[in-house]
Order: sequence, then C-alpha cells, then structure tokens
Amino acid sequence: MPSSEQQTIQVTHPADFHVHLRQGSFSELVTKHVRQGGFYTAYVMPNLQPPIKNTEEALLYKAQLQAIDPAVEYLMTLYLSPDLTPDEIKKAKKAGIVGVKSYPRGVTTNSEGGIESYEAYYPVFEAMEEVDMVLNLHGEVPSDPSSNTCVLNAEPTFLPHLIKLHQRFPKLRIVLEHATTRAAVECIKSLGNTVACTITAHHLALIVDDWAGQSFNFCKPVAKFPDDRQALRDIVREGHPRFFLGSDSAPHQSSKKSTSSPSHACAAGVYTSPILLPLVAHLLESFGAIHNLENFSSTFGRNFYKIPARENIKVTLRRPTGKLIENQWSLGENVVVPFMAGQPINWEIVPEEKSYAQEDIDNPDEMY
Amino acid sequence: MPSSEQQTIQVTHPADFHVHLRQGSFSELVTKHVRQGGFYTAYVMPNLQPPIKNTEEALLYKAQLQAIDPAVEYLMTLYLSPDLTPDEIKKAKKAGIVGVKSYPRGVTTNSEGGIESYEAYYPVFEAMEEVDMVLNLHGEVPSDPSSNTCVLNAEPTFLPHLIKLHQRFPKLRIVLEHATTRAAVECIKSLGNTVACTITAHHLALIVDDWAGQSFNFCKPVAKFPDDRQALRDIVREGHPRFFLGSDSAPHQSSKKSTSSPSHACAAGVYTSPILLPLVAHLLESFGAIHNLENFSSTFGRNFYKIPARENIKVTLRRPTGKLIENQWSLGENVVVPFMAGQPINWEIVPEEKSYAQEDIDNPDEMY
Repeated sequence: MPSSEQQTIQVTHPADFHVHLRQGSFSELVTKHVRQGGFYTAYVMPNLQPPIKNTEEALLYKAQLQAIDPAVEYLMTLYLSPDLTPDEIKKAKKAGIVGVKSYPRGVTTNSEGGIESYEAYYPVFEAMEEVDMVLNLHGEVPSDPSSNTCVLNAEPTFLPHLIKLHQRFPKLRIVLEHATTRAAVECIKSLGNTVACTITAHHLALIVDDWAGQSFNFCKPVAKFPDDRQALRDIVREGHPRFFLGSDSAPHQSSKKSTSSPSHACAAGVYTSPILLPLVAHLLESFGAIHNLENFSSTFGRNFYKIPARENIKVTLRRPTGKLIENQWSLGENVVVPFMAGQPINWEIVPEEKSYAQEDIDNPDEMY
Repeated sequence: MPSSEQQTIQVTHPADFHVHLRQGSFSELVTKHVRQGGFYTAYVMPNLQPPIKNTEEALLYKAQLQAIDPAVEYLMTLYLSPDLTPDEIKKAKKAGIVGVKSYPRGVTTNSEGGIESYEAYYPVFEAMEEVDMVLNLHGEVPSDPSSNTCVLNAEPTFLPHLIKLHQRFPKLRIVLEHATTRAAVECIKSLGNTVACTITAHHLALIVDDWAGQSFNFCKPVAKFPDDRQALRDIVREGHPRFFLGSDSAPHQSSKKSTSSPSHACAAGVYTSPILLPLVAHLLESFGAIHNLENFSSTFGRNFYKIPARENIKVTLRRPTGKLIENQWSLGENVVVPFMAGQPINWEIVPEEKSYAQEDIDNPDEMY
C-alpha cells in the first residue's frame, strides 16, 4: 500500500472493463489511446453503426482493432437485439466473445435499436447462463415525463429490472455498467456474487453542477448529486471486489461535444482513454483510495470476468512536475478532447525503452 | 375565457415582473425586445457590473432604459448589499424604486457580491416593511458538496430561509423569484398573502433532460424533474393570485451560451423577451391554462405589486401560419439567441398601425 509520500506506483496488467473504440478512421485515433492510457485489456462496447450483433461481426471488429494495436487484449461483446439467439450465444462463446450488452432504447449513443422489455430475451439469457457469458446492462430506463422519469432518476428506476433478472438467473454474471448513484451501489452490494458493477473515472470526479452548462462533461448516465459521488468514492476506497473500473471512455468528435447552436444537443460522452490510469490514480488519491488502484483498475474486474492478468505486464506511474492534461488529440480530421483538458494531473506513466508491449507487437500471434 | 377555437386573445397591459436589461450597447438590443414581446411594464433586475446599489444609480439606469424605449414602464430595483441602509431604503421609496433583490453569493450571473446571511440585513428589511418596498429573492443556496447541496436541491434548501424571513417580517412583501420546484410552489401556497412567486416561461417548458448537453437551455435555477414542472403548470392553470409571470429573460452573447471548449462553462440564462407574450400563450395553451393568460401575464402580478394596469394598453395575439421563432437577434456585434430558436410557435402579436405605445413615445413625459 503506497504512502502519501510515494513517488511511484505500479499496476499489473490494467484492464478497462468498458470502453468505446468506435469504427473507421476515428477508431484508428482512439484505439491507440487504450495503451497510451496504460491499459492492456479493453472490454469493447458493441454500439457501432450498425451495432455488432453476431459472432462474425464481433470477430471482424476485433481483427480491425488488432490491426490498429495488436498489443491490447480486446474482449468483445454483442449488442442485445432480437437477432440474437441461444445458438448464436453458444457460437459466440466458442469464438471467445465475453459478453452481451443491453441498451434500453434511446438512452445513449446508438441505442435506437435497444430493448424495451427483457422477458423476450429470457431464452438468450438462459443460454448465456449455461455457457457462462456476461450480461452487461446500461442501467437506465428511458425518460418519460408522465411517470416523472428523467435523466436524474433513470438509474434508480432501472434497478428493479436488475434485481428481477438476477433472481430469475442467479448464476448469470451481470454487470451494471457505469453506476452513478448511491441507490445503485447499495443495490449491487445487496445482490449475490454474480452481480458486479463498473464505475467510470469521471463519475468519481463529477456532480451535476459540473455538466450544467458544460457539455464536455455531459455523458449518460449523467453525474448526479454529491452524495451519489460520495457513495462511489466510498465503495472504491473500501475496496469491494464487485466494483471495478469500466471507463466508459466515449470519444466524440470535438465539434459534436460543443453546443454552438440551440437546434441540437451535444453528444453524450466523456473521453478518458489516453489519460486513464494516471487519471484514476489522480482521483483515487484525491479521496484517499489510491491503495486500491490495482484492485480497482485490474484485479477486481479480472477476478469477476475470469480474465487473468499477465504478471509481466506492469505499468508504472510517477509524479510529474507541472503536467497538464492535453487539450486535444487528433489524427487527420478526427479531433477528440479529453476529460479535464488543460488541467493539472498528479500522475503520469513511466515510458519504457523496450517494453513488453513492444515485444507483443513484434510477436502479435503469441499474445492472446 | 377563450375556447380552443379562439383565433385571437387580448391581454391588458402585460407586465413582466423579472427581466434583465443589461447595460451599454447590449442594453440597446435587448431593452427594445420588451415591447416587441408584448410587454409594457418591466421589473428590472439590478445585477449589472457593478450592481445597482443605490437610488442614484437606479434612477440613472432607468433614464438610460427610457432613452432606449420610453414606452415601457421600468420598475426599478436595488441590489441587496452591505451598502444598503434603512435611510437609503426610504430615499429609494420616495424616488419610486419598487424593490430590493437579494442574490445568494455566487449562484448566478454577477452574483459575486451576493449575500451570505440575512440577519445582517434585518434593519434594511424593517425599513422596507415600513415603507412597503418589495424584497425579491433569488431562492437558491450555493452548492456545497459536503452538505450534498447542488443545483438540483439549491431551491428547496433555500425555502427555510424564506419561511424564516416571512415569520420575522410578516408585512414585508416578498417574491420568491423563478420558482422551479413543487417544494417551492407548496411552500409559497402555505405562506401568507405577503409572499408571492414568479414563474418563468421557460420553466413551464423545460425539464432537466432539456438542458443536459444543451447549453442554450441552461439557466439558474436549472429546470428540474417532470413532476416539478407539473407543479408549476398546475398552479398556473389553477390561477393562484400569488403566482405570476417573471420571465427572468436573461440575454447573453450567443458566443457565451455555446460551449466550444472544455475550459469554461456557458453563461446561465434563457432569453425570452422578444417572443414573451406569444411564448407564454403558446405554453399555457399546451397545458390547458390559456384562460389564465391575462391573470398570469398581468393581473396577478400587478395586484401583488400594486401597479395598476393602463386599461388602454391592450396587446392582441393571433394565430400565425407556419411561424417559427427567430434564430437570433442582433445589433452591431451583439447577438442573442432566443429560447426555442427556429421552432414553431402558435401565437403572434397583432401589429398596430399607430399604437398607444407610439403615442407614448410621442409624449414620453406623460406616460409614467
């Protein structure tokens, strides 16, 4: 456990259990940021256009990502939709696909094809339980003014659906993604060991005031009350094995994050990939939780997902002097703005002359 | 009371009991929008830079506004600050100044000099009670994560301060400005006849989802839950005499409303002045309250403020065909974007060939 005077800290095989790597030329920019941010395992979301709905599409997408950076282990997911069958689940499992992501309809980026009711998917969930695939839930219900549902209570309102699924499929491993509320934290704690929860870096930093009038901090789920943030910080500081990092790093073109006109809202998403491990260290240290950096950023998630670490992959952080987070990253016409752009950050990754990562690039077939 | 088929509707001497008219060249643009929006009485906020803190400054500001548009009745206010004395209150009253506005420190535009505790102002409030001046409250407490206070509960958390003030000064007329929550509506209803409440047009339209990622809809207080909006709509439809229009029309340069960078948040404020009466009619009609258009936009506020209507000032609205709200208004380098820019609106003001307003311009000294 590092002391407050510690000048370096090491994490074995960091794993980000929720990341958006996009497609096309945009993917070439952001996929390389996974390793730049210190991560060598990436649990990849399937909400492309069109979504990744079957094994072939997932394997093709994985190959595209590997072509961009073969040194990262990509854990692939399918987008829950009516096209998904129990047979496809078995096929996907054999192909190494790890999970299935459920998006309620219309609540976030590319979720227009999301689900409205879980009952129709029970045969799929039974197959997932049987072959031990993970169900990843975007845990929000769509806004509905007639029932007083809006972005602020969309997550607590979703929790009964999670509880019902867990009761019906107690052996199915379920991850509630990017929890933002005390209600969600308490709910996950109360459920069995097959139910876990990812927490993003930015939800450890933000409250509603921070995205009010500041679209670059706007994401879904939105950051909530100070007390909700406190619950997230507390569970990370305590070190609960079913709460671990999923960055939900969600790049959008910079132009889509700004609001230059009243005729359209900005895209939802906060981008943390290129600074992720230093950022997590920076935040955890700010609320007395840096002793759990490795648990939160690698161990707990790996244990739940049964994805062992490679012990030779170790990322070392050190304290920089006067380091500011980059204002943006770009490749060709693609421009992304990271979270806390231009702001000071207290940790940075120690570069290596010839790293294991480079060795893996030299011998990509041997890696995973 | 108009029926649903009614094609015109008339309001006697519309009055906006909360408006920001700014200063300098920006004021020249936005002050003319009061009458353009159908209003002939404007209750003018004092949060300029520097704030309007005494009688002389208020009278000078009034003269500046009259020079821009003499046809509007400007009801002036002072900014509550340590500079304000009981003697100044008596002087202000004699000069025709109507109210004193209290801003909690740091919660909105130009509120850096706002108050932190009311007790120090009790002598001022006693003088106001004595001479019958109105106390206008920006009813929010500053955000404080350590007490779970943020923009979402800043108004309910303020209400005990309002209740305490009312109990201590039962004859002091107090207006809780721009109420946004069911809690505020219930609180005002429960208090005596000296306590009233303004409601903006945009808070009758917006919920939190509408400003999430859309900075042009961001204002303080922020729009809240659907149920809060419902409470505002219900009280307007019921027609409670202590709930009336104060637009809080708050113009900012268009460039300050957009968020083109993560390094600064946009300015808080929604701009409704140039479209105000048609917008209020449009919104009230949408939730079955247009029968209270005149009560809400003139009568109730005038009765509370004891500012009689001039019966010869009547503004007529009609149903346009395919009318869209203007995308922006500009004068020189000043550009403002109105609420619902580019969106359809179901009412417009009937222009008059030679209006009473023009007569007043011809004879400004006789008007007020």
